[in-house]
Amino acid sequence: MFYCGGFYYEKTFFPIRIGCKVSIPDSQLKKKLIEPRTLKGFRDFLPEAMIPRERLIDRVTKVYRSYGFCPIDTPVLEYLEILMGKGSEETDKQLYRFKDSGGREVGMRFDLTVPFARFSAQHIAELGTPFKRYHLAKVWRGENTQAGRYREFMQCDFDTIGTTSVMSDVETALVINDVLERVLRTNDSFTKFVVRVNSRKILNGTLEKLGLADKAVSVLRALDKLAKIGVDAVVAEMEQTAGASDEQARAILDVASAKGSNEDVLRRLEDLLSGNELGLEGVAELRQILESANAAGAPEERFVVDVSIARGLDYYTGTIFESFLTDLPKLGSVCSGGRYDNLAELYTRQKLPGVGASLGLDRLFAGLEELGMVEKTASTVDVFIPMFDANLSTKYCGLASRLRKLGIGVELYPEFQKLGRQLKYADKKGIKFALIVGSDEAERNVANLKDLRSGGSREISLDTDAFAEAIVSALQS
Amino acid sequence: MFYCGGFYYEKTFFPIRIGCKVSIPDSQLKKKLIEPRTLKGFRDFLPEAMIPRERLIDRVTKVYRSYGFCPIDTPVLEYLEILMGKGSEETDKQLYRFKDSGGREVGMRFDLTVPFARFSAQHIAELGTPFKRYHLAKVWRGENTQAGRYREFMQCDFDTIGTTSVMSDVETALVINDVLERVLRTNDSFTKFVVRVNSRKILNGTLEKLGLADKAVSVLRALDKLAKIGVDAVVAEMEQTAGASDEQARAILDVASAKGSNEDVLRRLEDLLSGNELGLEGVAELRQILESANAAGAPEERFVVDVSIARGLDYYTGTIFESFLTDLPKLGSVCSGGRYDNLAELYTRQKLPGVGASLGLDRLFAGLEELGMVEKTASTVDVFIPMFDANLSTKYCGLASRLRKLGIGVELYPEFQKLGRQLKYADKKGIKFALIVGSDEAERNVANLKDLRSGGSREISLDTDAFAEAIVSALQS
Repeated sequence: MFYCGGFYYEKTFFPIRIGCKVSIPDSQLKKKLIEPRTLKGFRDFLPEAMIPRERLIDRVTKVYRSYGFCPIDTPVLEYLEILMGKGSEETDKQLYRFKDSGGREVGMRFDLTVPFARFSAQHIAELGTPFKRYHLAKVWRGENTQAGRYREFMQCDFDTIGTTSVMSDVETALVINDVLERVLRTNDSFTKFVVRVNSRKILNGTLEKLGLADKAVSVLRALDKLAKIGVDAVVAEMEQTAGASDEQARAILDVASAKGSNEDVLRRLEDLLSGNELGLEGVAELRQILESANAAGAPEERFVVDVSIARGLDYYTGTIFESFLTDLPKLGSVCSGGRYDNLAELYTRQKLPGVGASLGLDRLFAGLEELGMVEKTASTVDVFIPMFDANLSTKYCGLASRLRKLGIGVELYPEFQKLGRQLKYADKKGIKFALIVGSDEAERNVANLKDLRSGGSREISLDTDAFAEAIVSALQS
Repeated sequence: MFYCGGFYYEKTFFPIRIGCKVSIPDSQLKKKLIEPRTLKGFRDFLPEAMIPRERLIDRVTKVYRSYGFCPIDTPVLEYLEILMGKGSEETDKQLYRFKDSGGREVGMRFDLTVPFARFSAQHIAELGTPFKRYHLAKVWRGENTQAGRYREFMQCDFDTIGTTSVMSDVETALVINDVLERVLRTNDSFTKFVVRVNSRKILNGTLEKLGLADKAVSVLRALDKLAKIGVDAVVAEMEQTAGASDEQARAILDVASAKGSNEDVLRRLEDLLSGNELGLEGVAELRQILESANAAGAPEERFVVDVSIARGLDYYTGTIFESFLTDLPKLGSVCSGGRYDNLAELYTRQKLPGVGASLGLDRLFAGLEELGMVEKTASTVDVFIPMFDANLSTKYCGLASRLRKLGIGVELYPEFQKLGRQLKYADKKGIKFALIVGSDEAERNVANLKDLRSGGSREISLDTDAFAEAIVSALQS
């Protein structure tokens, strides 16, 4: 065969024979690039987003753990029957579901509550009660992404189950307080927040007292519109949908609009609810929460009794919590929850009352960003060692190792390049210091420690004894 | 109507009228419990499994971070075209795939390498090179579960891409060393391990020298059987499948069976490969890894040049790593990886060479359990405060808060019960100390600190100044 020329396609040489048709095997022609892209509503997290997220998660879980909440994990996939019909009609519709290769109907979890209910029913005999867990994990919902919502996001729940003691409500309040204290306080600043508390027992007690105990849902629906439509329209709606008399409706509104200091509100509620055991129990529980929070050192203005908050029409049965950053009122509640009567009734006959809350990690993170409280960094280390002289690479390795043994993270640049370019790489990532050793420094057993933010630099000794002290004090200054 | 009796079913009373058929509404009869269960091959993690797993993960990521590797995350779901045909035929078959409600063909990731390739292609311009990432996340494979394998498991990868420098190979070796050092060393014991290193350049150089450069895959397949079928059968197979002569096959076996001290092996390889640039480059790189590991303080016996290890027939092109616990040789490699020429060629024309490794978290954890190195605990705190006297609950809250401010985790039992039962709860969870305050102690402003393992106890003052010191020293002793 005689070749007079040819061409390269995808690294393969295709000779062209004289008088022949050009022939490229199909397998080669089809080898096109696949477009690298993520699904709509799904996100990659690059280091500069991931590092502060991990820092936030670390802070949050440290608080959970300091109260004895324990981590658990459950599978991403569950039998469909575990997940369907457990949230709302909307969550059913948004479910990522399919038949697996074994023909089982399965779905990806849409929250952490339903898997926890299934988990509790399955393992409670082994776990014992009270049981305190936290669970930080991703959940999936095929939501409309136009509202800036994501189809894959993180939830961050903690719960105490198997006890009706108000001390667990107290603890839930304190965890919310400590988490937000920890996250919102930096060396320079503190963003104020309030935790609003209420008890469903107050409204339920009121309705019980009025003989409207079975009308809670319609009453709550009407109350929810108070700010929008005003007192008279709410009264009218209660008359219509809950069959309340004008007097009854106004009595409900009296309770729901109790205002003033915590003590004022609690006293007013005690008056209005006098004689009703359930309602007074709710008030007493709120009082206990405020007292214990005070004993735990929370500032007085931190917890606010607010009878207007009303989470989860059917689910919550006692204390409820919402929390707001004072500087960002429009952000909405960043951590919410409450007490419920029975977690896992669909899966077990054992009654599992509990109390818990869920931190809105994405929302809180967005808030911190808006407040300028997210430190921008794309690095996990404090010290950068450039490869100033390729002949010294083994020495750099040893030096980096010495720093790591002191607990100092070090990134060693792997290639010889112009020093300026290497330092630019480090600076772009937000690494604070560079430890520079050229052949001259190596001979004198010293290094140049350069502060990449200020540009200043100082020489430090690499002598065994002096080095640890010199580097640690330099990094701290 | 006149009722003479009835019965309860699902919390509802069904009266039985005289002379009437028993009638239970269908809606009630159908309300059966859903069996709480997980899918085959999927696991719940209870606290006593999860707490040591998180501790392990924490140790591993701290090492990754100390070298400047940064966390990233990618979606669990990817477009099917991103995932299909990227692993083996087997991974294609095992893929959890479905059509989402928008009609897109999607799949759940089966490893962290393919998503990282897609991620790199998509973001490398923004990230810049070299880029060092780690990724700890779950992956899914519909594997046969009979072999004790799971369909949902954790992977734990770290990689450096965008550089061909051997210093990144060195660093990969050091990270593997540091991770296993950190995990296998406790106060009482140290489980030895070795990291076996090889370079694909050595075999490829050998084949190049013999004029068999394109036969690497069949040669490797034959070599792989050496221990099983012996030298002569391997020679025969190489003759058959790789078209090697008897002399060529024996020359390959000479290289592949070089044994002795690291220096012996390297010298022997230098002899056998003399004149072949690629092969000698591989040897020089191994030498550099050993030297740098030595400079970083790794014990001499830690790294072993082993020309018999051969990972990833097509994927790896340079250094390769495997690591084994000396006491558990049958466990297999707990951390493996190597250098590759081009990570993301399916998604971008930009060449991204790299080197990395993957920690077998489940396997390592199983090994640690077998070695008795997993501390059994179902608690995240060191101190338990029983509710010895219900009237003191607010005081307990304050006390717990003081301890937490000292960095000491505390679990407060939420209900009043017999002290013995409360202490049993704490002991079962593995909490080490109980801080007991009754009314007598409260009056004298002291507490009883009980060591739940030894049973011993001592009284400590709750005075502001003395308390912190007393409790910290007591917990440390």
